[in-house]
Amino acid sequence: MTAVRGSRTPLALRAEIEAELTAFFTRRHSAAEAYGGAFTQLWTLAAEHVLGGKLVRPTLFVQSYEALCRTAERDAEQPSRATVIRIAVAIELLHYAFLLHDDVIDDDLVRRGRPNLIGSLRAGGTESAPHADADSGRVLHWARTGAILMGDLLLAATHQIFARLDLPADARGALLDLLEHTIVESVAGEQIDVGLSDGIITADLHTVLAMSAHKTAGYTFELPLRAAAIVAGAPAHFARSLAAAGQHLGLAFQLQDDLLSVFGDPAAHGKDPFSDLREGKLTAIISYARMTSAWPSIEGDFGDAGLTEPQGLRIRALLRYCGAEQFVRDLVAEQTAALYEVLAGTGSPHPLPPEVSRVLLTLAAELEERRA
Amino acid sequence: MTAVRGSRTPLALRAEIEAELTAFFTRRHSAAEAYGGAFTQLWTLAAEHVLGGKLVRPTLFVQSYEALCRTAERDAEQPSRATVIRIAVAIELLHYAFLLHDDVIDDDLVRRGRPNLIGSLRAGGTESAPHADADSGRVLHWARTGAILMGDLLLAATHQIFARLDLPADARGALLDLLEHTIVESVAGEQIDVGLSDGIITADLHTVLAMSAHKTAGYTFELPLRAAAIVAGAPAHFARSLAAAGQHLGLAFQLQDDLLSVFGDPAAHGKDPFSDLREGKLTAIISYARMTSAWPSIEGDFGDAGLTEPQGLRIRALLRYCGAEQFVRDLVAEQTAALYEVLAGTGSPHPLPPEVSRVLLTLAAELEERRA
Repeated sequence: MTAVRGSRTPLALRAEIEAELTAFFTRRHSAAEAYGGAFTQLWTLAAEHVLGGKLVRPTLFVQSYEALCRTAERDAEQPSRATVIRIAVAIELLHYAFLLHDDVIDDDLVRRGRPNLIGSLRAGGTESAPHADADSGRVLHWARTGAILMGDLLLAATHQIFARLDLPADARGALLDLLEHTIVESVAGEQIDVGLSDGIITADLHTVLAMSAHKTAGYTFELPLRAAAIVAGAPAHFARSLAAAGQHLGLAFQLQDDLLSVFGDPAAHGKDPFSDLREGKLTAIISYARMTSAWPSIEGDFGDAGLTEPQGLRIRALLRYCGAEQFVRDLVAEQTAALYEVLAGTGSPHPLPPEVSRVLLTLAAELEERRA
Repeated sequence: MTAVRGSRTPLALRAEIEAELTAFFTRRHSAAEAYGGAFTQLWTLAAEHVLGGKLVRPTLFVQSYEALCRTAERDAEQPSRATVIRIAVAIELLHYAFLLHDDVIDDDLVRRGRPNLIGSLRAGGTESAPHADADSGRVLHWARTGAILMGDLLLAATHQIFARLDLPADARGALLDLLEHTIVESVAGEQIDVGLSDGIITADLHTVLAMSAHKTAGYTFELPLRAAAIVAGAPAHFARSLAAAGQHLGLAFQLQDDLLSVFGDPAAHGKDPFSDLREGKLTAIISYARMTSAWPSIEGDFGDAGLTEPQGLRIRALLRYCGAEQFVRDLVAEQTAALYEVLAGTGSPHPLPPEVSRVLLTLAAELEERRA
């Protein structure tokens, strides 16, 4: 009996989350049948895309939750395994709902080199969606509409799961508060991100860093870690430390991502090496460069959709030369150091239990590897 | 004390709902301040648009609820007035969230002759959103993004309100079920509607009628009426009658709307007289006409954005001539007759109480007036 908890391998955990996701999509697909073939096809495609994902966030949630449960310092009765896995599923559905609306906003048809839901819907061609007669503009409109609507359905589903959790009312309330906070923060971050690239909001460094922290850090790390603390009934000081750790980790990952896509090895990270520069993405790197004397030499080519490799290499060299690369590397180092400080419990009477720190250190190690 | 319930005038009820909506937006606006001027501006504009609306749905909910409470046949303890008004507000927020995503999907900047949220965001010009430097395509993208994101925020807010209602768990669960059903149905209806106009889904009459019933009838009439039955603890036979009445009323309103925008007096309904024909909107009128020998004479001009008045008048005459107008008028009459049958309780051992029927008859009378 005692060996069961914590003995699950990452693969077994993944299988558990996938089984619950599959059950969710199967139920929704059945309910969709009343509304015809196009609607069931939308559910089929959404299920395929979600189940093909890496499930980083739900895995982090369950692993942190289990680590917290293995520590002595907890005071609540534990919920059933089904409840824990249901929360994990809701966290993944929220993530995917955000991705869908992001892809609509950014007009993307591809994610990680494969068609996203919009791309799949556009390809269509099933019996229920005979695209042959429709012109391509209309098919794209149809595909983007599908992504807006599926985003709405999954955002609603996330809330339905949270609202019906078999937990004490105060824990359920705390999770609903966390969900609200996460959504408001991500949406605000997304709005700023779009405002920056559309030239509506001024790209000062402070705004860009706040956007980076809000847009993805919140729901990628803070939500799973804070949810784990709530469900495990962890004491308030652990919850605070986990929230802080999630923020540092989230910002470090985002900045590391920005660095990789400009300075990294395309063969290793699999992204188009100059796509951020072509899109004119306003990252921390760029907002630092804008304050330097190198900017006038960068500005002309930055955001040019037809950027050539020599132009890209030239901008990259200038971003190095002006100190932007080093500045952002230092920021990543700062966030990583702050994370280690939280994990070490420096100056805190209640350091996080080693079991919990280990989960976060594994993620931090991934960050170090990505640096290569 | 006894005179309070039911003595509220429609104006007083409106004021009550507005006060709670204002409180909601004030709280959200304050919370938004942490994320900068563009985000607070988004909340300010959304509040203005929602408070400028007709509040048809929340009013119907509260009036039906009150009518049900005044009848003898109810068996549950009544919730607080605050809870009732909170549900009314959630119903209005859901409606507005749907409108926002509809406007994004339909690329509309105007609603009822005034700028919608996208139109307002595009006009911009506040300190927090200095649009002067940005080109018009980018400003429009920014504005549409705002509508997607505010739709997400209000969809989330609707669920947050439902999830936290101070009601017995079974009533809260029933409301959450109803909310899920309403959203799935509306989204499916919207997807079919878009599929019809994009030429992805074949426009047979059955599909068009199902779409009309799903897309708006559900959340306009069924949601408020069924929610009223749940909150009032009305017996199951009342709940079923109210759901049926809501469906008939909803479909009748939708078909009447289709008729008005083609055959009605533009001075009275305030819509562009031929906009449905210009947009190529696939209404029940059109899907009937497609089955007649008049269609080849209509098809050429139908959906032509540059449709002239003579062309419009010609199509209108053909739609009359081929029997499409009469066919849809008969459908409206059928739905109205079915509604009256539900209200009269023909063949039912439990007719709806007269108080409740009166609320629905007032709406049906509005339908008759709109026919003029």
